[in-house]
Parts: sequence; structure tokens; C-alpha cells
Amino acid sequence: MGRRSEILQRATEVFERKGVTQTSLEDIAREVGIKREAIYYYFKGRHDILLEIIVPSSRELLTGIEDILKSNVPGNEKLMNAIRSHVNAYNPRYLEMSVALREDHLFSDDKKFEELRDIWQRYGDMWCKLVEDGQATGAFRADLDAKLVSYAILGMCNWLSRWFDPEKHQSLEEITDTYFKLTFEGMQPRA
Amino acid sequence: MGRRSEILQRATEVFERKGVTQTSLEDIAREVGIKREAIYYYFKGRHDILLEIIVPSSRELLTGIEDILKSNVPGNEKLMNAIRSHVNAYNPRYLEMSVALREDHLFSDDKKFEELRDIWQRYGDMWCKLVEDGQATGAFRADLDAKLVSYAILGMCNWLSRWFDPEKHQSLEEITDTYFKLTFEGMQPRA
Repeated sequence: MGRRSEILQRATEVFERKGVTQTSLEDIAREVGIKREAIYYYFKGRHDILLEIIVPSSRELLTGIEDILKSNVPGNEKLMNAIRSHVNAYNPRYLEMSVALREDHLFSDDKKFEELRDIWQRYGDMWCKLVEDGQATGAFRADLDAKLVSYAILGMCNWLSRWFDPEKHQSLEEITDTYFKLTFEGMQPRA
Repeated sequence: MGRRSEILQRATEVFERKGVTQTSLEDIAREVGIKREAIYYYFKGRHDILLEIIVPSSRELLTGIEDILKSNVPGNEKLMNAIRSHVNAYNPRYLEMSVALREDHLFSDDKKFEELRDIWQRYGDMWCKLVEDGQATGAFRADLDAKLVSYAILGMCNWLSRWFDPEKHQSLEEITDTYFKLTFEGMQPRA
């Protein structure tokens, strides 16, 4: 692994373990086993490292749901695919996703975070569109507010970052299946 | 408002705005308009202030769901009541709940946080029991993993702390109603 990738890898681990705001460049350097100053050869600072970790997986989620929306399958399959795409983002990038979903960087005034916030905003909008489209075509019931429904499902999927442990828990495929059945069919006993 | 309550109130606002780890005693003192040292007359430190803010609303959620579990109503009503209890916790204590759900304190080694973690653990267990009981009585379908289902609903309700703005969004009653219908009946078109 090159030095640059090693910095990113170690930084992800420290961010995940200590939280972003509590991680200093010093901490990252210590994990890599280099001096703080040596990091500046590769990165301008902590925020640049953080963004390089979380922007790609966030951007992938966005292009993923854009492709799903364009695909020619019924609404319920789109729902299933969008849940799968989100849930699968935890593997193998569990750490990256967890760090991306930490709210620390939401408090930052750093303009650099604008791209990230914009990606997540657009991702939420796409989810809302998925629900609205399904309501328009009759794939989903139309009496529920599309925004509330999409935020609910996003919350369900995002909250995984707070409890899911790839070593301990169910497979992501089982989680996808359960979340799909829960949101599409509900907990009501099946006829 | 007494000085002590004023400290708690201002601290809640700063914690919510800046994040817990980025808030110093100095910041809190400045908001109240007193010296940092004066806070020590009321509190031992930042963590004590934080816990006094978030433990009561967390404990209320726990006793709330315990009462719901003991109540003599069908499973779907228990589900509705448990969602309502959680969603309503955002009003009027929106700030307290948001701060409680921040993950900052999960990284803390401070033993003082054990009580809080224990409350949330038990709260999650009660949710799981609510689903299991409903599955046992036939109120809910039994083919979904109770833990996954309860964590999904908790995620949905907890994620409110990240997007809900009491000034801008739907009423909590509408959110409760939508979350109940989504999880009990699902998005499938109604017959």
C-alpha cells in the first residue's frame, strides 16, 4: 500500500474510533508511524483527508440511485434495489459510510463540505422521487407523504451505521430483504 | 429562570449548534454571561451538564415504552403508541433529544455515560420485545427478524433528529401516523 493510501486507511480507522472532531492530524500521523509534517506532503489538512474518505462512497450512492430511477423495472423493484444499494454501501466500506454519516462535519463552516452536503441533499431528493414516481404509477399507495416516507427509509438505512457490526450481525442481504418487506408489505400479518 | 436552569438551557443550545465535543465550558459560560469558574458552583464539569440534559428525556422514553408494553391493547396499537412516544419526545424537547442522539458521547470513556448507554440499550430491548410479543400473539407477521425490525423503526425515529425542524416540517402527529402506516401496512397499494 502506498503511503498516501495508508494515510487514508489509518485516518478512516481513527475517525471511526474516536469521532472526527476528536481526531487530530497528530493522531493520524501516529497511526501511520510518520511525523505530522510528513502528512502535508500528501494532504493540505484533516478536512482534505476526511473528504477524500467520504466523498467517493457518498457519490457512488448518488449515481447508484440515479441509475435505479432510470431503470425499467416496477416501483417495488426500484425500492428493493435502492435499499440494497444503500445497505451494501456498508460493505466493504463500512468505516467510510460510518464516518460519512457522522454529523460532526455538519457543524463545519468549511466550504469544502459543501460538495458533500450537496451530494446528500441530492441523494435524499432522488429517494423522494423514487417514492413519488411509484405513487404516480400505482406501485405504491399514494396517501402517504413521499418526503416523510423517503426520510423514514433513509433513516432506517443510515442508522445501520450506529449499530451494525459486520463481525456480529446478520448479512446485509438479510437486512435488505427485511427492510424491503417491512417498508413495502408492512408488519401486518400476511393474508 | 434560576441560574442553574439557565446554564442547562444555554448549554443545550450550544451543544445542539456546535456539537458536544466542540463545546467547551467556556462556550457555555459565555452564553450565560458568567465566568467559567462560576459554573463549578453548580456542576462538576461539561459531562455532568450534558448528562443532566439528556438522561431525563432518555429515561422518560424508557418508562414510556415499558408502560406501553404492559398496556392491555392489541399489538398494532402498541406499535402506534411506541412510535408516538418516541416521535413526541422531539417536542418540546427537540434539542435535548437531538443532543442525546448525537454520537459524540458514545466515544467517551467517562464511566458517567454508562447509565445513558444502559438506558438506550434497555430501550432497544423493549422495542424488540414489543415486536416479538406482537409476533407471538399474531398481531405481526412472524417471518421477519424482530431485532432487525425494531432497529429499523428505531432508526427511522432517531433519524428525525437529523432532519426534523419544528419550524419547517410536518406535525409530529402526521409523522407518527405516516411511520405507523409505513411499518404496519407498508407502501404496497391498499386493496
